[in-house]
Amino acid sequence: MDPLTSPLLTDLYQLNMIQAYLDHGETKTAVFEFFVRKLPPRRGFLMAAGLEQALEFLENMRFSSDAIDWLARTGQFDKGLLDRLPSFRFTGDVHALPEGRVFFANEPILRITAPMPEAQLAETRLINILHFQSLIASKAARMVLAAPGKLLVDFGLRRAHGAEAGLMAARASYIAGFAGTATILAKEKFGIPVFGTMAHSFVEAYDTESAAFECFARSRPDNLTLLIDTYDTEAAAHKVVALAPRLAELGIKIRGVRLDSGDLIALSRSVRRILDNGGLSEVTIFASGGLDEDQVSAIVQASAPIDGFGIGTSLSTSSDVPALDCVYKLQEYAGLARRKRSTGKATWPGRKQIWRRYDSNGLIDGDVLSLASDTQAGEPMLELVMKAGRRLGPPPTLAEIRARAAQDLKRLPQALRDLNPGATCRVDIADALVRLAAEVDRRIAQRESAAL
Amino acid sequence: MDPLTSPLLTDLYQLNMIQAYLDHGETKTAVFEFFVRKLPPRRGFLMAAGLEQALEFLENMRFSSDAIDWLARTGQFDKGLLDRLPSFRFTGDVHALPEGRVFFANEPILRITAPMPEAQLAETRLINILHFQSLIASKAARMVLAAPGKLLVDFGLRRAHGAEAGLMAARASYIAGFAGTATILAKEKFGIPVFGTMAHSFVEAYDTESAAFECFARSRPDNLTLLIDTYDTEAAAHKVVALAPRLAELGIKIRGVRLDSGDLIALSRSVRRILDNGGLSEVTIFASGGLDEDQVSAIVQASAPIDGFGIGTSLSTSSDVPALDCVYKLQEYAGLARRKRSTGKATWPGRKQIWRRYDSNGLIDGDVLSLASDTQAGEPMLELVMKAGRRLGPPPTLAEIRARAAQDLKRLPQALRDLNPGATCRVDIADALVRLAAEVDRRIAQRESAAL
Repeated sequence: MDPLTSPLLTDLYQLNMIQAYLDHGETKTAVFEFFVRKLPPRRGFLMAAGLEQALEFLENMRFSSDAIDWLARTGQFDKGLLDRLPSFRFTGDVHALPEGRVFFANEPILRITAPMPEAQLAETRLINILHFQSLIASKAARMVLAAPGKLLVDFGLRRAHGAEAGLMAARASYIAGFAGTATILAKEKFGIPVFGTMAHSFVEAYDTESAAFECFARSRPDNLTLLIDTYDTEAAAHKVVALAPRLAELGIKIRGVRLDSGDLIALSRSVRRILDNGGLSEVTIFASGGLDEDQVSAIVQASAPIDGFGIGTSLSTSSDVPALDCVYKLQEYAGLARRKRSTGKATWPGRKQIWRRYDSNGLIDGDVLSLASDTQAGEPMLELVMKAGRRLGPPPTLAEIRARAAQDLKRLPQALRDLNPGATCRVDIADALVRLAAEVDRRIAQRESAAL
Repeated sequence: MDPLTSPLLTDLYQLNMIQAYLDHGETKTAVFEFFVRKLPPRRGFLMAAGLEQALEFLENMRFSSDAIDWLARTGQFDKGLLDRLPSFRFTGDVHALPEGRVFFANEPILRITAPMPEAQLAETRLINILHFQSLIASKAARMVLAAPGKLLVDFGLRRAHGAEAGLMAARASYIAGFAGTATILAKEKFGIPVFGTMAHSFVEAYDTESAAFECFARSRPDNLTLLIDTYDTEAAAHKVVALAPRLAELGIKIRGVRLDSGDLIALSRSVRRILDNGGLSEVTIFASGGLDEDQVSAIVQASAPIDGFGIGTSLSTSSDVPALDCVYKLQEYAGLARRKRSTGKATWPGRKQIWRRYDSNGLIDGDVLSLASDTQAGEPMLELVMKAGRRLGPPPTLAEIRARAAQDLKRLPQALRDLNPGATCRVDIADALVRLAAEVDRRIAQRESAAL
């Protein structure tokens, strides 16, 4: 069974609860919302991503006969449940914040309205999908803000957490404004531009560095970027200068060199000088090697002559913040608002909407969180994207999503753009929501006391 | 194309280099080794995992006609490469540290000996597979050491980085000594025991908490664990006591309660008292809710009456250390040892072996890293597991791997077992290795100067 599409890629308790719901006829309409409880350290905003894959998951959520046979063989599930599984489909509605948009703590970016068993079964994988891409888009956005005008490329596949993480990190970072990725499959699946240079092993395999450069250039003359730090970076830069005329005779142009170790600021300056003195002022300098947004920012602040960055592990694992405190919570069932009141984890009940307000410069001025039925001033952020299990229209292209992300990043006030943000956006909780929470609490208390 | 098996889930530069290697006939035998350059903060040891999936990947590494057609359509690859792809197979040898074994910095846990294009193409996904499972097994081992005798369950799927990460975190943590996982697919794929309780949404969907408990108990009477923190934990514990006799009449036994928020030490004590006073001394207390090994350790040190822990995000993302500084480096090509000398990233050349020595109590006393040909005292750690592309025997069972992991954890000296390890294991570099590195450097220098 393919873990990417298997309905068994879920928590056991989901099937346990569905069995109980079916046994007791609790299949009325449930409303769940996905949101981040609080922003992690050093994040003034987050960026939504992964909706496309979340909708694909909902459209394809079904149990193969293999999966049903396996569940039956475990002997842990009743006929009442097993008989329902062949026809199990997601038939609900989805409201969502479009991908690429910026959001803040407590703001739902997805709302599911569906019969309880469907809404419940979707939980684990929906969180798994939305959490990861939003995590990476949010991290990548920091890099984009730290390096305006620089070429940023995702180099993170090898240390991403598995195959899907590597692929989806390429997508999420591209949404946030990266120029592309090294991951070939991301081009095949999503049309994302791919970039590639050479590895140290290639240089080492040849008798001399120059021989390695020349062999590579002859075989891969397009967008030729030579890796120059295998033995001695400055010496290698001189070899590049010496090689350039010979390659030029063959009609091969060196596009760039890559630095992958050492003091990148100092080396980029000396390499730039060597290249310029050798008549290679058009050859760009690309840097990689354990970079994160802080190092990229320091390089940019120092005006080091680096034109682009390959960013790997820190991007694809969101290394300083490898997880968001996100949840998928029941907000309404059978027409009544619901909330949990666990210590430190209480939630706002009901079907919600975010309204966003902008200042006279078009910058985000603050959001209001209220019930969807309680219209507020500002831009309503959540849109209906799926009705009765079917999408309302074709998905936006990645180019459209990228444009949306770029626009939202432009709308961030300075305090939120900083790598060490001084603030986050103000999110006001509307009176209607506060009143509803109190109402839910009263109802719970009444019923509990009546039950005693 | 399935990202889990597609040969396009790799970096573009791998195909670029392979094209260049084929063009220039550089298809001689290459030796690459995978190792961690240095231990991350707060890690005195690491645990190897993921070899089984790495070998599966190598056995199945091939280009489908879809993948080849797509590569041809990009127009970026020459006929010389495209024609080779249909018959492309991994035909090399693999030496590896068995899964579940403990290792340290600079120690190779995998060695690939294969024609250069095969060894090179494998790089990205091999790192992707071995890095993640070793990362998670190493994190899980800390939790196992922090909570001796406690039931530990992986709850990490929802915030794992994608589908594969969620599934493989279940496997890696089970290897390290977890009792099981909440992820159903991990049982279907690997036979790992699954555990499941109920969610807050289930409690909220019912008019009263007691009604929710009773409905759930009637539907899922086996291994019944009730979640008691949705509204008021102590009040819910009293409800469990009141419900127990009614359930007992139906032949249903409450196995446990789960706490998911609040002060777990204090709540576990008051809940234990309530349960004991209500005649439910056999009902266990299970805790979850953003736990990591430090919190688990504090709970255990406080002798809080908690019998087991569900651990999610901190486990499945290895949240304090979401990546290891691991690499896959060329050690030999065409019969000559190789190394890179990049600043801060120089490698030891040649085909290596680890020899491990134990003290009189059977604890790990120190390792020696040398050339495989330079036999040392101690236990040789790397084994030949694949010859000419075929496995030497059936893979070990997960039970065998778990036993190996448990044995290696027992062999750790106290300084390495601590959550804040005072030390790591001493790894001596044998003279033979130092001499070979100097030889390689001399050869590189001679050839470079001859080329001037």
